[in-house]
Amino acid sequence: MVHIDKQGHIDLVHLEKLLQEHPGSFVSLMHANNETGTLTPIEKVGELCRKYNAVFHSDTVQTMAHMHYDLSTLPVDFITCAAHKFHGPKGVGFLYINKRIKIHPFITGGAQERNMRGGTENVYGIIGLAKALEIAYRDLDHDTAQITELKKYMATRLKEEIPGVEFNGDVSDGNLFTVLNVSLPPSDMAEMMLFNLDIAGIAASGGSACSSGSSVGSHVLSAMKTDPERPAVRFSFSRFNTKEEIDYCILKLKEFCLQKA
Amino acid sequence: MVHIDKQGHIDLVHLEKLLQEHPGSFVSLMHANNETGTLTPIEKVGELCRKYNAVFHSDTVQTMAHMHYDLSTLPVDFITCAAHKFHGPKGVGFLYINKRIKIHPFITGGAQERNMRGGTENVYGIIGLAKALEIAYRDLDHDTAQITELKKYMATRLKEEIPGVEFNGDVSDGNLFTVLNVSLPPSDMAEMMLFNLDIAGIAASGGSACSSGSSVGSHVLSAMKTDPERPAVRFSFSRFNTKEEIDYCILKLKEFCLQKA
Repeated sequence: MVHIDKQGHIDLVHLEKLLQEHPGSFVSLMHANNETGTLTPIEKVGELCRKYNAVFHSDTVQTMAHMHYDLSTLPVDFITCAAHKFHGPKGVGFLYINKRIKIHPFITGGAQERNMRGGTENVYGIIGLAKALEIAYRDLDHDTAQITELKKYMATRLKEEIPGVEFNGDVSDGNLFTVLNVSLPPSDMAEMMLFNLDIAGIAASGGSACSSGSSVGSHVLSAMKTDPERPAVRFSFSRFNTKEEIDYCILKLKEFCLQKA
Repeated sequence: MVHIDKQGHIDLVHLEKLLQEHPGSFVSLMHANNETGTLTPIEKVGELCRKYNAVFHSDTVQTMAHMHYDLSTLPVDFITCAAHKFHGPKGVGFLYINKRIKIHPFITGGAQERNMRGGTENVYGIIGLAKALEIAYRDLDHDTAQITELKKYMATRLKEEIPGVEFNGDVSDGNLFTVLNVSLPPSDMAEMMLFNLDIAGIAASGGSACSSGSSVGSHVLSAMKTDPERPAVRFSFSRFNTKEEIDYCILKLKEFCLQKA
């Protein structure tokens, strides 16, 4: 596994070393981490992969429709998409496969999707995905500016209101603007934080939504060696959020952090 | 592979022999054949499977919501469902797994569906499936009578109008009432039959929809040793079809059968 720093950036020198030792590997590195928003420089990773004849898959589910992709120049072999990440329908997505790659189907049975995936297609979902993608790219510049401002507003207000607050991952400009992973000061209420936010009508998660309901900690934060005593809460922003919502959220967070069990 | 007769019925004596020779097998036999409507007696197959400690999967996609299932007594281990077979949304279905069976997930990744299938669920599709299933079972008796009459009407009118017409599969009562596989007399227009029907606004298929666009013949009809010179057309009926549509279809079929290339 490639080394990462404490913000979750991958170590490109170590990656090259691994590729030298294992030419022709399969490399899978997500474009933006779903819990922290830290970006991987996929152009550079892709170039290294080409140099050492590795196949490169990037999970771009967090970034698709939020950043531009030029697949005519980007050296990737696989990228992915999930429509619900940009207000499209849930349960539909796509896998892009570079034409230089030949793969075998994983789900066989019918001749659908040129024999690549058996099963009757979710047509309304596919149409919804395409429309949502079209709208997202049409409004990309506007939405990026708006959401970036919301995220910065939240980070600034948190620093003002909650002493000792920190952030997990890289929150500098250029990283994913839709996610802010907040590291709160240790408190008696830590274990109840997500529960209390939920009761207050605030939808946030401790880690990945894929493991909601699971009581184990975040493997992402654990790999970044964050302090397990500090509660981590992942907030996500969309064009439908407002500063008023953020003000309310901070009010509640402050209340929960200062509360005694 | 278990032997079948020329209507597509499986040979239960041969099945028992195979199970005796290979106890603990995995048996997969569809409840109703999708191209012909011929039913498999899944209670009897299930009992044989239990006797010889075999695991029994039945593809019930054609029959789910068109026939009753009592899973508290039916000796099956897996049955399946696809919503679009009963006016539910396309691209959503389910697999029932008997609680006596423990399987490993095929699609890993997230903890969704109790770790059995990673990936964000198609929620609107799932809700649509449930509603369509509810409606289908609510109206089952009425719809069964109505659709059975349509199928019988078409079979009777075809016999009257097209000399030499035959049917593939078992068309007797008790088989699947939603499918009629018509075997037309050899004709110069055979190869153009589906194309001509399509042009006339009649949606029918030569075999399985899963292999539409494929130029190879039906493996089902081939296994039943039907005459390859006779064009086979699969008609499907729903509660939305009418006798007028059938009259129009027969008019066109007659025209195409009598036409010279």
